[in-house]
Amino acid sequence: MSKSAELLTRYEEQVESIWRDMTPKSRELCDSAKRFTPGGAVRSHSTGTHLPYGDRVDGCHVYDVDGNKYIDLVLGMACIMGHNHPAIVAAIQEQIPKGLVTYKPDVKWDLLAEKMNQRVPSIDKVWPAFGGSQAFMWAIRAARAHTRRDKIVKIRGSYHGTYDDAFISPPHGSPGIPKDRLNHLLFVDWNDKEGTEKVIRENKDDIAAVLTEGFHTGGALAPQDGYLSFLREVTEKYGIVLIFDEIVNFWLDHGGTGKLYDVEPDLCCYGKGIGGGIAMGLVAGKDAIMNLFNQEESYRIAAIAAHQGDPLTVSASLACLEIMSEDEISRINANGEYMAEGIRNALKDAGLRGFVSGYGNHQALHLTDQTDVDDPVTYFTNTNTPGLKEAMSLFRRSLINKGVMTLENLMHVRASIPLTKEEIDFSIGAIKETFLEIRPILAETTPHLVV
Amino acid sequence: MSKSAELLTRYEEQVESIWRDMTPKSRELCDSAKRFTPGGAVRSHSTGTHLPYGDRVDGCHVYDVDGNKYIDLVLGMACIMGHNHPAIVAAIQEQIPKGLVTYKPDVKWDLLAEKMNQRVPSIDKVWPAFGGSQAFMWAIRAARAHTRRDKIVKIRGSYHGTYDDAFISPPHGSPGIPKDRLNHLLFVDWNDKEGTEKVIRENKDDIAAVLTEGFHTGGALAPQDGYLSFLREVTEKYGIVLIFDEIVNFWLDHGGTGKLYDVEPDLCCYGKGIGGGIAMGLVAGKDAIMNLFNQEESYRIAAIAAHQGDPLTVSASLACLEIMSEDEISRINANGEYMAEGIRNALKDAGLRGFVSGYGNHQALHLTDQTDVDDPVTYFTNTNTPGLKEAMSLFRRSLINKGVMTLENLMHVRASIPLTKEEIDFSIGAIKETFLEIRPILAETTPHLVV
Repeated sequence: MSKSAELLTRYEEQVESIWRDMTPKSRELCDSAKRFTPGGAVRSHSTGTHLPYGDRVDGCHVYDVDGNKYIDLVLGMACIMGHNHPAIVAAIQEQIPKGLVTYKPDVKWDLLAEKMNQRVPSIDKVWPAFGGSQAFMWAIRAARAHTRRDKIVKIRGSYHGTYDDAFISPPHGSPGIPKDRLNHLLFVDWNDKEGTEKVIRENKDDIAAVLTEGFHTGGALAPQDGYLSFLREVTEKYGIVLIFDEIVNFWLDHGGTGKLYDVEPDLCCYGKGIGGGIAMGLVAGKDAIMNLFNQEESYRIAAIAAHQGDPLTVSASLACLEIMSEDEISRINANGEYMAEGIRNALKDAGLRGFVSGYGNHQALHLTDQTDVDDPVTYFTNTNTPGLKEAMSLFRRSLINKGVMTLENLMHVRASIPLTKEEIDFSIGAIKETFLEIRPILAETTPHLVV
Repeated sequence: MSKSAELLTRYEEQVESIWRDMTPKSRELCDSAKRFTPGGAVRSHSTGTHLPYGDRVDGCHVYDVDGNKYIDLVLGMACIMGHNHPAIVAAIQEQIPKGLVTYKPDVKWDLLAEKMNQRVPSIDKVWPAFGGSQAFMWAIRAARAHTRRDKIVKIRGSYHGTYDDAFISPPHGSPGIPKDRLNHLLFVDWNDKEGTEKVIRENKDDIAAVLTEGFHTGGALAPQDGYLSFLREVTEKYGIVLIFDEIVNFWLDHGGTGKLYDVEPDLCCYGKGIGGGIAMGLVAGKDAIMNLFNQEESYRIAAIAAHQGDPLTVSASLACLEIMSEDEISRINANGEYMAEGIRNALKDAGLRGFVSGYGNHQALHLTDQTDVDDPVTYFTNTNTPGLKEAMSLFRRSLINKGVMTLENLMHVRASIPLTKEEIDFSIGAIKETFLEIRPILAETTPHLVV
């Protein structure tokens, strides 16, 4: 066994031993779950060990069935009002006696549509969907119906849910998604204006839409050198629909990422964080395209679902819009930058090479000797470096042992409303301690990352 | 103007005049909703007038913003435990303080998976989805990944949500869905064993799945002459995955339509009614295929969503399974048959030709001089007969004026848990009265329907 493999094995044993002592009930439940759920507990992928079973959540805290308490720096990557925000719970409690779903038009939906219109400059009209994946399916459908073209341009390394066209990428596609879906897809690199322009120009008569985030989640990568404005110009020039995925990053700014970077997409998709803990989805945007959702028209897209716009979910979303005021977003953005600075200092103190990228409440750690990374392909290549990948997986497991939860397979953190400065400091302390634990491993596996 | 057109116009004026007097606030809100929602109020399609705005719902009753009370015989076609069943509300109230979503494995999900396994003979394992459309997308994906084939066989005239392959049909497809999706689809007629066998045999090496309801919703048409057993045999013979859509009709029997007709499909999809008023979805079935949902495996399907299996939704589903006991299903099935008999008598008393088809709590009216209809294509052809279609649209509007809601574009009724015999009798009285109103119109437009 090589020295690096030996170090990894020994560290894994240490981390796993603490974890087993902390979470005997969770471990038993994860085993038992395999009887009726494929692979056992849902969400159990890619961790290398059993997950903690949730008992209850509150604010930025998760309590597991073994009595452990964790600071949740993930919050499903989007629920940054925190778990069970009192205003959201109050909104739900006000609605429940009136009905969970009415299957009827509802004034609360109309109010939500109006508030989104007022809040986001690019929005004329709004349509309720059933979570984010469905929002993408319908937005792509609307773009195709509007342009009467089929091709969709996507950013390499992006994630937009599990709808076929949103999910698959070349060369191998994905099991169970017909390969010919790839015929309708084109891929470009985030922040690569020249390459993007070429692909779009060469296929301009066939492209229905460009689907992108306004701020790239994987790696927490902001647009550089006016990449979004460039996308806006080139799509407008060729009559292509520009769709923004706002699922994870809408709350970076009071008006979303379009407002933040002063670009008006044609359509935006919302989900997850827009429901504040309840499953929700929206498609919103310009009149000319949104009118394809009008179910009274003969040329319309299929975009109906039984529970869309039900008053329970809409109540929660209305509360979210109230909670996420300009002041509150400024405050958590400052907290996010404070957390980023703390992680940068922890890196330096631990003698590791890397940087933290992001904006406001959404930050990501890059362990690399590069001074800058501006595209997700490089980011994912870096995170998958042999040795580093295994070490970072153990890094996160060790961090959870210390009561701090980050994203399972990436090192992203979110500053949420209930997260206090004290909890940020505690988290940074735990991160620094864990950096020091993995330093000797990285010195063997990836010495370029160690000062 | 022809005499029939004149009669239709006069009846429309009468019906609309009453409706306008009943619902001035709803009318205003529907107009106002057009500012921010395409077409105005969501769900406003195909009615020919404005819809009532929901104020609150309770049991089998809807109360609109104008103070009108309606008996709801639709309940989203599936929520037949009734609105806000006390046991469902109690289950939700018990969960809310613990969290709406935890993004963690949860014992409530494990219990739901176990209970579905115990309840439905064909189920080995269960996977949470995010509503019915996503359940179909993932079930089709699992079938394709399992068989490494792409073609899906569907029943002509069926509806399985808005996922591309589930939704489109020839010859024209649907706006915004690439036409080449049709290359992977084959269509057969419900209850047509010979035709179905031929299509399957001729394409056996390319077919991944047959997607069907166990009981056909459009027309409320039961399988005839062992059609489901035949489907089970022919799919097994050629290694094809048999998928049942249980969204609307799971509650026809304690074990669903597979149990009712003694057939074990490979996969079942659940949604809507399985959540008891909260958006929910499930894919469930045989081990060999369900294991493709195991996210620890390298050969797996994309089947993750942030809110899948969240404890709030799962709490509601667990309560539904308790509520929907064998006794309760027997009781509402008897009520459904009683309602069917009442509608048959009303038809006879009004001197109209037709019949009521269905099973238990799910019944549908057929206005026709045929003595039997066993396929949805014929059913939809009948309902779209010029003159009859317009008259039936007004029939439903007049019925709503009398306080009885049926499906907007079809005449289906559901017997729900809170629906009393008195309310059924009242509904039948209203239906008979309305039959008498449309009789003179039908005597002109479709005289073969009048005795």
